[in-house]
Amino acid sequence: MYTAESIEQLVEEFSSLPGIGRKSAHRLAMHILKLPKPDVVKIAEALVNVKERINYCNICWNFTEENPCRICSNHNRNRSLICVVEDPNDVIAIEKTHEYKGLYHVLGDALSPLDGIGPEDLKIKELLHRIEGSVQEIILAMNASIEGEATTIYLSRLLKPLGMKITRLARGIPVGSDLEFTDEATLARALQSRTEV
Amino acid sequence: MYTAESIEQLVEEFSSLPGIGRKSAHRLAMHILKLPKPDVVKIAEALVNVKERINYCNICWNFTEENPCRICSNHNRNRSLICVVEDPNDVIAIEKTHEYKGLYHVLGDALSPLDGIGPEDLKIKELLHRIEGSVQEIILAMNASIEGEATTIYLSRLLKPLGMKITRLARGIPVGSDLEFTDEATLARALQSRTEV
Repeated sequence: MYTAESIEQLVEEFSSLPGIGRKSAHRLAMHILKLPKPDVVKIAEALVNVKERINYCNICWNFTEENPCRICSNHNRNRSLICVVEDPNDVIAIEKTHEYKGLYHVLGDALSPLDGIGPEDLKIKELLHRIEGSVQEIILAMNASIEGEATTIYLSRLLKPLGMKITRLARGIPVGSDLEFTDEATLARALQSRTEV
Repeated sequence: MYTAESIEQLVEEFSSLPGIGRKSAHRLAMHILKLPKPDVVKIAEALVNVKERINYCNICWNFTEENPCRICSNHNRNRSLICVVEDPNDVIAIEKTHEYKGLYHVLGDALSPLDGIGPEDLKIKELLHRIEGSVQEIILAMNASIEGEATTIYLSRLLKPLGMKITRLARGIPVGSDLEFTDEATLARALQSRTEV
């Protein structure tokens, strides 16, 4: 279809990325063709760099360039608090709130028997290994999905006997949203967890 | 904000592409992190290859790896017909119809005095140079925009004195669309250009 092999190849590569269809891939390829060569080389280098430099932190299993990662090696963080999340994205989301000063533990995924993801596929063994006497609270910050719920229940059962406080994120009405447009499940949870003013 | 410099850099690069916001850029970067390294190298190579191998065809000014391009050097194409388009994308769009067997000429843009694009910025001189005795018809296939219209009018005035047939794409109701949802301008053009059944 295209008049040049290398354009076709680039469109193929772009299409293979999530959320990029054939049309967007084609628009992106045309954009690349119009960019100055040094800019394109910079993009290509950023791609390869990320694969070459990024590893998993051996403590929290977040992505990192150094090992241990900047958060694990930061002595200003509260080491008695571990927030367990599914994904590195979740660490970023929580960091953005500037509300949390403890450490993290990235499971890598959530339990999902239907997709063949069991406890041994998550960094649960590694979580148990790093919990020592100084940890006072573990926050289970899973997504509000079925898999997230299953993971929360599994982990709370596993961790409770160890004696530390196990908490989870509050469920309720998102800030800024209308009652009218809040789904029933969220509204029910908001009612159950109502707080005194 | 991110825990690693190289992820931040990749997110920046993705965000600089058209139609990719900060959130998509971040999702793409996370996808890249999860891909096997050879796949990422393949994407990086496709990017650099396209800049290294692609040039403009010296006859039609379309993107090409060979010079002249595959269409210009294909002797099965009708050399008495030149279709003038704004952009390489337009060549691909017309090729997809499998309706056209002539040659192309890519102007590179449309006339747009407000953006400072005048006739000397388009490949018009090059078009005049390549028109010889054997060319019988020139199809002006500009976009249906104000700039496209202006370019069509400019080129038709320039080319008509040379004696060959000058045509333009028909305007009318798109195939498959409802009268009800067709804009007034299109409907008016469809009425003016009505054909006998």
